Amino acid sequence: MNVTLLRHGATARPGVYAGRLDVPLAAAGRAAMWQATRGLQVQRVVSSPLSRCRLFAEALAERHGWPLTVEPAWREMDFGDWEGRTAAEILAQAPEALEAFWRDPETHAPPGGEGLADLRRRVLAAWERRPRDADLLIITHGGPMRLLFQHLLGLPCESLWRLELHPAARIDFVLDEVGARLTQFDCGKGH
Amino acid sequence: MNVTLLRHGATARPGVYAGRLDVPLAAAGRAAMWQATRGLQVQRVVSSPLSRCRLFAEALAERHGWPLTVEPAWREMDFGDWEGRTAAEILAQAPEALEAFWRDPETHAPPGGEGLADLRRRVLAAWERRPRDADLLIITHGGPMRLLFQHLLGLPCESLWRLELHPAARIDFVLDEVGARLTQFDCGKGH
Repeated sequence: MNVTLLRHGATARPGVYAGRLDVPLAAAGRAAMWQATRGLQVQRVVSSPLSRCRLFAEALAERHGWPLTVEPAWREMDFGDWEGRTAAEILAQAPEALEAFWRDPETHAPPGGEGLADLRRRVLAAWERRPRDADLLIITHGGPMRLLFQHLLGLPCESLWRLELHPAARIDFVLDEVGARLTQFDCGKGH
Repeated sequence: MNVTLLRHGATARPGVYAGRLDVPLAAAGRAAMWQATRGLQVQRVVSSPLSRCRLFAEALAERHGWPLTVEPAWREMDFGDWEGRTAAEILAQAPEALEAFWRDPETHAPPGGEGLADLRRRVLAAWERRPRDADLLIITHGGPMRLLFQHLLGLPCESLWRLELHPAARIDFVLDEVGARLTQFDCGKGH
């Protein structure tokens, strides 16, 4: 069984922290998602409820006649006080929390936001209850994709950033009784 | 700085264990290597001395005017008594050693062959003395590619098989002062 993870494309507000914030997808970001899924054959689609994932998921599912499930647990990490702000803005005012998050996200959650352990818990719970009867496309965000990559490859926590991940990034796994194996990875537009 | 790892394409003796054995590349394997490197821009090429890597490396380097270094340390694991035999043949005669190698290659070397720790030592030594002044293509084998992937991502030993790896597989990393990050992966022909 094959599972494809797709990150949403570039948004209309590039560079701002947006977790719960529902920033719209840019036209180029939508085009990049079409390109990243060209030739893809799956039987089911699961999407984050945020519009930058969901609207494309609806169009793709309709085009191919694939059933679509919108699953709130695949939304991005809640960045709390950082929502809608750029890293440069945060660094100018209070760099400590952001630098600590970059250095060690396991123990430094965004202020007023969600911890990495909480995000991991909801993403892995959503992974465990995924449809298992078909090849699957999951349209989601950078945080959930990093955590699932880490989980399926058995990466240690400190390797979370060893994946370059831009808008419209795509990760493909094959799953069988032995476990999950990485078959394709594309870091997306922006590299 | 970018580093691309390329596995040789399919050989004329598919399915046999070949480490020190210099099995020739099949025509389709050579075509797959040209396809996997289409559009690639590097400034240097390093190749295993085995002909299934080296002959393509010479042709590619000549075509682009890239300097080529043939580096014995990038050759495949020496499979000892298994050289030239298929897994089915080995399993029919003496399955224990092969099954132990699949289960735990760290502590079960091929009989008369090379241990994984020895292979890791020579591959990581070759990695440390690689040319660092340019984007680099390294043309090598499955074993060295798995070990370097494991090393650069910080994977634990037991995750060695979490990478699906067929002939002409390609792995791309970007390297900077922060470390290595995976940018592209293609499991190659055969999936």
